[in-house]
Amino acid sequence: MNDVDRVPLDFGDRHYEILVGRGLIENAGGHIAPFIRRSPAIVITDRNVSAHYRHILERSLASSGIECAVIELEPGESTKSFAGFERLIDAILDLGPERASTLIALGGGVVGDIAGFAASTVLRGIDFIQIPTTLLAQVDSSVGGKTGINTRHGKNLVGAFYQPRLVLADTGALDTLPRRELLAGYAEIVKYGLLGNAPFFGWLEENGAALIDGDADARRYAVAQSCRAKAEIVAEDEREAGRRALLNLGHTFGHALEAETGFGDGLLHGEAVAVGMVMAFDLSVRLGFCPAEDAARARRHIAAAGLPAGLDALPGRAWDVATLIAHMQRDKKVSDGKITFILARGIGDAFVERDVELAEVEALLSCAIAA
Amino acid sequence: MNDVDRVPLDFGDRHYEILVGRGLIENAGGHIAPFIRRSPAIVITDRNVSAHYRHILERSLASSGIECAVIELEPGESTKSFAGFERLIDAILDLGPERASTLIALGGGVVGDIAGFAASTVLRGIDFIQIPTTLLAQVDSSVGGKTGINTRHGKNLVGAFYQPRLVLADTGALDTLPRRELLAGYAEIVKYGLLGNAPFFGWLEENGAALIDGDADARRYAVAQSCRAKAEIVAEDEREAGRRALLNLGHTFGHALEAETGFGDGLLHGEAVAVGMVMAFDLSVRLGFCPAEDAARARRHIAAAGLPAGLDALPGRAWDVATLIAHMQRDKKVSDGKITFILARGIGDAFVERDVELAEVEALLSCAIAA
Repeated sequence: MNDVDRVPLDFGDRHYEILVGRGLIENAGGHIAPFIRRSPAIVITDRNVSAHYRHILERSLASSGIECAVIELEPGESTKSFAGFERLIDAILDLGPERASTLIALGGGVVGDIAGFAASTVLRGIDFIQIPTTLLAQVDSSVGGKTGINTRHGKNLVGAFYQPRLVLADTGALDTLPRRELLAGYAEIVKYGLLGNAPFFGWLEENGAALIDGDADARRYAVAQSCRAKAEIVAEDEREAGRRALLNLGHTFGHALEAETGFGDGLLHGEAVAVGMVMAFDLSVRLGFCPAEDAARARRHIAAAGLPAGLDALPGRAWDVATLIAHMQRDKKVSDGKITFILARGIGDAFVERDVELAEVEALLSCAIAA
Repeated sequence: MNDVDRVPLDFGDRHYEILVGRGLIENAGGHIAPFIRRSPAIVITDRNVSAHYRHILERSLASSGIECAVIELEPGESTKSFAGFERLIDAILDLGPERASTLIALGGGVVGDIAGFAASTVLRGIDFIQIPTTLLAQVDSSVGGKTGINTRHGKNLVGAFYQPRLVLADTGALDTLPRRELLAGYAEIVKYGLLGNAPFFGWLEENGAALIDGDADARRYAVAQSCRAKAEIVAEDEREAGRRALLNLGHTFGHALEAETGFGDGLLHGEAVAVGMVMAFDLSVRLGFCPAEDAARARRHIAAAGLPAGLDALPGRAWDVATLIAHMQRDKKVSDGKITFILARGIGDAFVERDVELAEVEALLSCAIAA
């Protein structure tokens, strides 16, 4: 038996666990069986993930006596549309679900987000289990209950806060993940160190390379540590009224970069966040909150990991200050028209700042574009 | 100042009130102002309701310093489709809402259901206030937080449990309601008496005619009493795991009749429930749970109110036992393939029964069709 870490999540009356370790898909049946109240379980996945894991999961569920029906989605962000959502809902309803039915999401962030939203709305809510197969989904999107789809106005503008019954983060699934996607997920791991845990950031400086190269213990430790960090913040603030905003470190800038590149494969979310975190530290230095050395350390580690650490690492784009600012002002988390920035007093010490002079942000972006 | 009854609702950490009385739309601004955190408030209504009440509401909000933007929907059940939902979401997002924005639903069940679902999902949830303008919406759909839309598989199969911040049930709005719709709403009022409050049913036998003919005090009392009855049940069982099922008295049969008539204007929901309640009492008598006299009393009052009390009152249809049973088996509340029936031991004493022999139901329907 492989080592499994357990991360507890508590939201008032709802309690569940994230299990982290190798081989969890192979052994999913035993972990999931206690939660199944009605057959068949409804597995939602995408074609790419299905090719690797569908049969392993089906076999494991069957060996625990769980029948399942599988719905395969088209891979990619475009699946998270209204049309995609309606198709998915129809496919689920074709199976004649009842309130006691369970939906299992097997895949990355797209699958988890749309399947979770479907679970929260079909019959006004059925049980939901997540099996995230990308590093990004394991350390970010599958933790905390955010679900949703995109509209023509932007990403994740329609959705629900909906907690799963169980999350199985099989770090073995990372073996089949393209390196670029692995790195994009790693950016979110770095984020947890930078925003609230300096020792963990130190550990990543030591062990990040091994983790990226496939060290199983390092992967399990970092994924569990990241889930724990997010769980702690989210449990305090499920509906994102306060402290949960810290999780947006790097995301205000990153979101603008993604919006500008059309949220496509040209710039992955984690890559945008990597650049965004460096910008957030640079802005913190510029505003006198943070020692320059800490910003430099953040930038060094991000670059060393193989992630973009500045706009110069994202070539072939004509960035424009006013356009980037306009993207930031359309963010979901804007309040009274003010952009919220997550700044830092140093490595591991982020805070929420709503009163940043726009001129400072413009100056920072001008420098970044010129660099 | 007109009399206003206040019905409190409690769901753990969420508390709100339903206000019942004449003139609440004219005075909406004052009641709503404490809940508005950001301008503009987004009013959702339909063209018919708008013609009567939009300007009254706008004036009242303006006099309390509340700006509003109004979205007008097409009247009718077909608005509660996926396409209608996407259009509504887009219209809301066009207004640039923030998490602190408030959505106000002004209208009947269709407006409340789709607007509530939109409020629960836009930005993963914004504040929601209901101003139900039909009797059915005032005593049923605006109480308890059920929201949703229809799919090709059936009614309300996609939605959320989402509580408003405030409900204003203006009984003055009933003056402009067509008599047939008023009666359909009255059926749900009768339901609260039949399922759990024999004295209230007695009061309706005495005062139902005055209520239907426009007596203001009788309307306020009956609406508030109905909200109180539903609130009590729903607060115990928000997610419909147990006792809330009692509210489905008459609905299992009624739903089948509606499904058979295509959920159109040919048979209103309340009319179907009226027939359904009589059938539920007849089934209870047939199974030996209920004295025949109580079933007769229920039937007499429903007929006296001007509501259909049997299939013979719904002419021009070729009803078929097998088809009606098949409709019942596709209900959202079916569990392990068993149809749940709400039966009664007498007036005011309903209970949930999951073990009814299908043959008894078939026999009952055969009689009802032959009558």
